[in-house]
Amino acid sequence: MNPYLLSNEELTMKLREVGELRYHDKHPYHVRMHEGKLSPEQLRAWVANRFYYQKNIPVKDALILSKLPSKEERRKWIQRIMDHDGTAEHEGGIEAWIRLGEAVGIPREEMLDERHVLPAVRFAVDAYVNFCRLQPWLIAVASSLTEMFAPVLISHRIAIFEQLYPWIKPEGLEYFKARLHQAPRDADHGLELVLRECKDRSDQDQAIAALHFKCDVLWAMLDALLMAYPIAEDER
Amino acid sequence: MNPYLLSNEELTMKLREVGELRYHDKHPYHVRMHEGKLSPEQLRAWVANRFYYQKNIPVKDALILSKLPSKEERRKWIQRIMDHDGTAEHEGGIEAWIRLGEAVGIPREEMLDERHVLPAVRFAVDAYVNFCRLQPWLIAVASSLTEMFAPVLISHRIAIFEQLYPWIKPEGLEYFKARLHQAPRDADHGLELVLRECKDRSDQDQAIAALHFKCDVLWAMLDALLMAYPIAEDER
Repeated sequence: MNPYLLSNEELTMKLREVGELRYHDKHPYHVRMHEGKLSPEQLRAWVANRFYYQKNIPVKDALILSKLPSKEERRKWIQRIMDHDGTAEHEGGIEAWIRLGEAVGIPREEMLDERHVLPAVRFAVDAYVNFCRLQPWLIAVASSLTEMFAPVLISHRIAIFEQLYPWIKPEGLEYFKARLHQAPRDADHGLELVLRECKDRSDQDQAIAALHFKCDVLWAMLDALLMAYPIAEDER
Repeated sequence: MNPYLLSNEELTMKLREVGELRYHDKHPYHVRMHEGKLSPEQLRAWVANRFYYQKNIPVKDALILSKLPSKEERRKWIQRIMDHDGTAEHEGGIEAWIRLGEAVGIPREEMLDERHVLPAVRFAVDAYVNFCRLQPWLIAVASSLTEMFAPVLISHRIAIFEQLYPWIKPEGLEYFKARLHQAPRDADHGLELVLRECKDRSDQDQAIAALHFKCDVLWAMLDALLMAYPIAEDER
């Protein structure tokens, strides 16, 4: 079992395979979103529930930051927190997601008070934060590697939202536009750490399992949405 | 018992009293340092051991960051991590402390490999990090309020090091000079949070106890130094 250390190319390929099999773009709720077939209510539910994930990104990143092995790695990782929380000059991803909410018709107050967040979405996101809290930093970093798959998906999403959901106000798409350059940078750093610091096949297998876990988190969020906002029988 | 909520002025005064009684400037090792009476070996021991504290500051601050209640508070708190870890433009406090080590004659390698760190210093600093990991954010923030007492002490220390330890290379003092403006800003934010978020006398008493605990941490570090590098009998 586990007879040999994977090369960087082999490990990268195995990580990509996890995404090809399990990234949330293949979930029925997501497929329908990108086919332009979600109702306004279903799209609003996605935005409001996904916000619970968005607001927890700096939390899990601060937990990873507290475990990284050097100031050099922290210097890079801290940018993720600033991207989401914002700075004096830049409002940040959390605020941008609130504006997406407003652009689809959810008042800011309803985003902030979490009234639309489904229990199973909360459980999945909390599981992700606790994974980052409790696992070794290398495994927590590996769980972030869904960012390898995000840029392609998000570039499609921008075009799809513009074309198939013309009722969404265009200023709502700023979050996705920012992620187009942030996510590849984050994915490069995360992958570099995983490739460099996995010292044996056991580390590598745990990194792959961590990415699998993270895909399960994103998938479970969409399962909860599908249960609560089902697709009509005649559209299946 | 605990009959009433303290006013902001009363709570601030009680926090200051903790410092007046227990801040580490009153420890015999520290008193001798500021009297110019530490030997080069004793001063080097202080610098090398204190570095274990310095390098853990961003760790405890990332743990607090992960618990703060809003992006607005995180935006302020994150500056502490950047002050110590540095950025592309600014080398940061950890690097500056390594340079202090070099200025007193400790090779960088000996700072980084922790060979001079005494077990009891490690225990005290680790206790502080775990306090910040495990306590509610408000109590962890309160433990940082030794920064209220730091600027006065550090302004003295710069003059004392320049005058009484002329063998220390002047470029070693950059860490202290940076703290002269960083510590008051940090203390103001920490105190503002504590005053604003302590909702009852129990919160206030826990905040006071947290600052007491933090003073114990700093004190225990100097106890360990005093045991390992005793003051000569004829100098007591």
